[in-house]
Amino acid sequence: MKRGFGSDNHSGISPEILKAIADANVEHALAYGDDEWCARTEALFREHFGPQAKVYFVFNGTGANVLNIDAMCRSHEAVVCAETAHINVDECGAPQRVVGCRLLTVDTPDGKLTPELVKTRLHGFGFEHHSQPRAISITQSTELGTLYTLDEIRALADLAHSYNMYLHMDGARLANAAVALGCTFKEMTTDLGVDCLSFGGTKNGMLMGESVVLLNPALDVDMKYRRKQMTQLCSKMRFVAAQFEAYLSTGLWRRNAEHSNRMARLLCSELQPLTATHPLKVMYPVQVNSVFVQLPADVWHALQKEYFFYDWDEAANVVRWMCSFDTTEDDIHNFLSALKKLL
Amino acid sequence: MKRGFGSDNHSGISPEILKAIADANVEHALAYGDDEWCARTEALFREHFGPQAKVYFVFNGTGANVLNIDAMCRSHEAVVCAETAHINVDECGAPQRVVGCRLLTVDTPDGKLTPELVKTRLHGFGFEHHSQPRAISITQSTELGTLYTLDEIRALADLAHSYNMYLHMDGARLANAAVALGCTFKEMTTDLGVDCLSFGGTKNGMLMGESVVLLNPALDVDMKYRRKQMTQLCSKMRFVAAQFEAYLSTGLWRRNAEHSNRMARLLCSELQPLTATHPLKVMYPVQVNSVFVQLPADVWHALQKEYFFYDWDEAANVVRWMCSFDTTEDDIHNFLSALKKLL
Amino acid sequence: MKRGFGSDNHSGISPEILKAIADANVEHALAYGDDEWCARTEALFREHFGPQAKVYFVFNGTGANVLNIDAMCRSHEAVVCAETAHINVDECGAPQRVVGCRLLTVDTPDGKLTPELVKTRLHGFGFEHHSQPRAISITQSTELGTLYTLDEIRALADLAHSYNMYLHMDGARLANAAVALGCTFKEMTTDLGVDCLSFGGTKNGMLMGESVVLLNPALDVDMKYRRKQMTQLCSKMRFVAAQFEAYLSTGLWRRNAEHSNRMARLLCSELQPLTATHPLKVMYPVQVNSVFVQLPADVWHALQKEYFFYDWDEAANVVRWMCSFDTTEDDIHNFLSALKKLL
Amino acid sequence: MKRGFGSDNHSGISPEILKAIADANVEHALAYGDDEWCARTEALFREHFGPQAKVYFVFNGTGANVLNIDAMCRSHEAVVCAETAHINVDECGAPQRVVGCRLLTVDTPDGKLTPELVKTRLHGFGFEHHSQPRAISITQSTELGTLYTLDEIRALADLAHSYNMYLHMDGARLANAAVALGCTFKEMTTDLGVDCLSFGGTKNGMLMGESVVLLNPALDVDMKYRRKQMTQLCSKMRFVAAQFEAYLSTGLWRRNAEHSNRMARLLCSELQPLTATHPLKVMYPVQVNSVFVQLPADVWHALQKEYFFYDWDEAANVVRWMCSFDTTEDDIHNFLSALKKLL
Repeated sequence: MKRGFGSDNHSGISPEILKAIADANVEHALAYGDDEWCARTEALFREHFGPQAKVYFVFNGTGANVLNIDAMCRSHEAVVCAETAHINVDECGAPQRVVGCRLLTVDTPDGKLTPELVKTRLHGFGFEHHSQPRAISITQSTELGTLYTLDEIRALADLAHSYNMYLHMDGARLANAAVALGCTFKEMTTDLGVDCLSFGGTKNGMLMGESVVLLNPALDVDMKYRRKQMTQLCSKMRFVAAQFEAYLSTGLWRRNAEHSNRMARLLCSELQPLTATHPLKVMYPVQVNSVFVQLPADVWHALQKEYFFYDWDEAANVVRWMCSFDTTEDDIHNFLSALKKLL
Repeated sequence: MKRGFGSDNHSGISPEILKAIADANVEHALAYGDDEWCARTEALFREHFGPQAKVYFVFNGTGANVLNIDAMCRSHEAVVCAETAHINVDECGAPQRVVGCRLLTVDTPDGKLTPELVKTRLHGFGFEHHSQPRAISITQSTELGTLYTLDEIRALADLAHSYNMYLHMDGARLANAAVALGCTFKEMTTDLGVDCLSFGGTKNGMLMGESVVLLNPALDVDMKYRRKQMTQLCSKMRFVAAQFEAYLSTGLWRRNAEHSNRMARLLCSELQPLTATHPLKVMYPVQVNSVFVQLPADVWHALQKEYFFYDWDEAANVVRWMCSFDTTEDDIHNFLSALKKLL
Repeated sequence: MKRGFGSDNHSGISPEILKAIADANVEHALAYGDDEWCARTEALFREHFGPQAKVYFVFNGTGANVLNIDAMCRSHEAVVCAETAHINVDECGAPQRVVGCRLLTVDTPDGKLTPELVKTRLHGFGFEHHSQPRAISITQSTELGTLYTLDEIRALADLAHSYNMYLHMDGARLANAAVALGCTFKEMTTDLGVDCLSFGGTKNGMLMGESVVLLNPALDVDMKYRRKQMTQLCSKMRFVAAQFEAYLSTGLWRRNAEHSNRMARLLCSELQPLTATHPLKVMYPVQVNSVFVQLPADVWHALQKEYFFYDWDEAANVVRWMCSFDTTEDDIHNFLSALKKLL
Repeated sequence: MKRGFGSDNHSGISPEILKAIADANVEHALAYGDDEWCARTEALFREHFGPQAKVYFVFNGTGANVLNIDAMCRSHEAVVCAETAHINVDECGAPQRVVGCRLLTVDTPDGKLTPELVKTRLHGFGFEHHSQPRAISITQSTELGTLYTLDEIRALADLAHSYNMYLHMDGARLANAAVALGCTFKEMTTDLGVDCLSFGGTKNGMLMGESVVLLNPALDVDMKYRRKQMTQLCSKMRFVAAQFEAYLSTGLWRRNAEHSNRMARLLCSELQPLTATHPLKVMYPVQVNSVFVQLPADVWHALQKEYFFYDWDEAANVVRWMCSFDTTEDDIHNFLSALKKLL
């Protein structure tokens, strides 16, 4: 399938990642994480997130999110999140089935929670009929391609802690956020009071591999059993660790994310002139690697015959175009040419 | 870590598998299984298991087993299995947590269920206080390195069906069984009435990848949602499919399994002379790639300083030595030399 | 505690119910439902709900709702309900923990779903990342004291069935609804296409006892095991059945519900003159036995020192006053006298 | 149905209990436990079990057992119990579904665990593939009508605590045990180190009502939410508390248990002469209110036409005869007459 704008997991694997896997393919290693690659990569996580960071490698983002929720909440507790949060709309109910807890969702204009929005869900404490709010979950960058500023994250962490709650960050696209904000991972998480993190690499050039990163040591209780019990323990874990090692130690995370963000900006800037003359609208600020566009239904459907991409809000004629680490400038020009022909 | 006899997942990746991953790393592909590699590999599964076979790729053996159990049972139902079954002792309670069902375990002399043993658990039908037996699960080859004959499997399938139950096969080491029995996968499963299968490749040379193979179409209900909800849906699934494609289409499954089985036979035959003169005992027939040995505790502990391997039954001084696709004859001779020095 | 307006489960037991329990206290009876009281009462349910009605007695409303959801949905499926539905806000996440499914909630002006509101949640069918909508749940009478008309119920049943979904009715206060609408239970449920029902007696004069009533026989699969497994099987079930027998066969359900509805109307009508002269507002039509009132915070708090009642919406100064089968006209006059003194 | 020997929950309600319910049927009371009956009865529990005892009323024994397990274990942990334990064989998998944990069962000769038997299950600590043993559960008196001595209980409590585990006692028939051992409840539980208790009244004359009694305050965390979430919160809880109040404060528990124990002894002693001349065998010491008897299949089946009772071990021709608080000496003589005619 030709490169398109369907999803950043439609792309393949960065060469550095493939090489790291091949390099790790030597002799034997203990399974389940007790190997030198895991040891080195765990140390790398501590470099990037601070000395207290504890990482648990898992297979995918659903696994990372659910394991984090399980670390924070028991089944009678609840997680406050945006209505658009991946944990709410894109996990087919995994938190409910595996953890048994409730999600308390809030409508947001741009995928971002605010303390004011969160507070609308913070009631019923001590009342046994109500699931007890125990965590706030935010996505950075959000499902709508928007970003929390550092101050906004800190404010949510402070709010969470003032209620004896935790702040979780779904960082499936954390690298894109870090390069957009020009900060380190630690400055965006640990330093602000984020308690735990789903840190992903798959959407940014890895083959397969995500991680739970506990930044609050109080959460690090019996995690290895729960990871195993929820089916997320990898046997040949050195090959996940080796990917993260290459990702973090060579700056690959940054290079790939900078590139895909730049491609989205390019796509957006090339669209701008068209919006003046056609019924096209860029819906949200393009801060990372996605562009949400409202366009006439007939154009949208015709364009989908040439390129695969997702409807985002069918009723509102909004689609999502996502750039990837391997998107090229030519890809964008070809895509826009196809679009222009249809307008 | 030098090559040893700890586990077949201590070994790395077969070169054919790595190459298949690299070859699949072209352009873009739809995520979550809607790609050409998955399509081709699903067809390969139908070749190997019969036209009705339906495959669902998952990350690991726990995922495959739990998804199969979820296909067969609701939470008020139960699976009859050997006390030594992986689903019973090595999943940290994943079936209980994720499916919510009971396992009805039976003590066996050699890891193998028989109709007589299973029948001891087939009661309480229609009695609401009792979990209703709904499936039988066997492991081929077993956790003790033993094998079911084709007739034995058929007898268990017939028993299951006569009670309106299903027969599941945990085939984490199915390739080793097939080459040992000299039969095809289909002859060992579909043709005998096996309803569903966990078919693994990770222990036999793949990087990471297992599968649920439904042989009874009646089980194929809503599987994709359950796979997703239990956190086992892979995004860049082409890279799992590509591994299985190489594994099945090039005969790699057979070559690797034949080799590791042969290495275990070699290890066993070289041990035989020692058992006449030393307190060593091979515990079970060596039919596939593992050798269970009883040996003096001091020897065992001294040997573990040089080689990693698992205690199997600490009280009985029994250990497990496992051969892998990359075990060499030299490895075995060196290992036995180390052992002889300690005897 | 003196009689007040806190809840219809603050009241005790109707004398007819106590007598029925005492009358059933003879000799021995088989446990778990296999007794003559259950047989007679099951027949009564068929009289009231139609010949296909199948009743499962449970302990409480949470149990009835969760067992109904379990009958309709597997964990990867979802129930559409009002944001204010008891199953959403007052079960401490029981559906999530016990069934593992999602609730898809909709904001409503008056606690009532409409086909238009429900349709906003009916998307993502066939998409494995989304919980699959499988049921609609309405409460009759609603948590806000409002009523669905028969036509409105039928429209929701038709909508559900057109999507291969089920319609569940939470009938904790079904009797109040039936007398208000002047219809039979069957006319309000079975005849309109309701698939299953939580039918309660506790809030209307019984000691303890609720029921799952399946009106769609397709749902009647393995229910007895699930009731047991979710801890809702009563041993001396004759004493639950005997209560329902008295409740249904003597017209007690009607007498009690008519009375409490009438008391709420009285309370409302006596409040009306006050609303002209004071900052008091009755929030919803008073159709059954509850009155929701907005009143000044100081009045509300002072009144709570004399009478226990629940805040409903603290931010909006709205409280709930609930009448019961044993509320007297004097109770209402005394309560209003206390209120008037505070205004 | 005439009085028989089927089960102690085939009997009805003690008059003292019915009176207590009627006496509590006055005016209004707050729901869900915040009433004077609950307050008084909670104090009674502290009198009977020691000042640290914390009681949570529930509906039934399954609810009490599952809530206790939930207090002790998370899903990746396990409870060691006898193969014959009610939580293992008679809850239709409720612990697995609701808590998600494993039960590690041990075969016993008489339904009683010993430290030696329990130790066979205490391994795999720290190994993530194994459910972590976290609790021991014993039934007092056991499902086979046998009793733990105080020393035996203390030994199991000591063992549990030495492994950082808890000891749970399923006391569905605790009263029968206490009168048989001539000790108080506290001497049989708190004083020996029992951490938590399922304390039942239904089998000994109550209408419906069981309780979780936490004796180790460390377990008292978030219990009220979990009770609600697992569907075990009673609304008109005063009527459960009032039953327990009558049960504990009037000595009813003792009178009823003494009577049913005495009836079982009578039944056993009248059987003794028959065992000399007929193929009858009393299987276990008759220590409380049940008698397990092996008898010829044709006699057994013929007797079941006159009296309902349970097969216990169909293969071994063993049945269970259970005496109740309302069993009379005449009942026993009539039953034995019927038996004699058949021999």
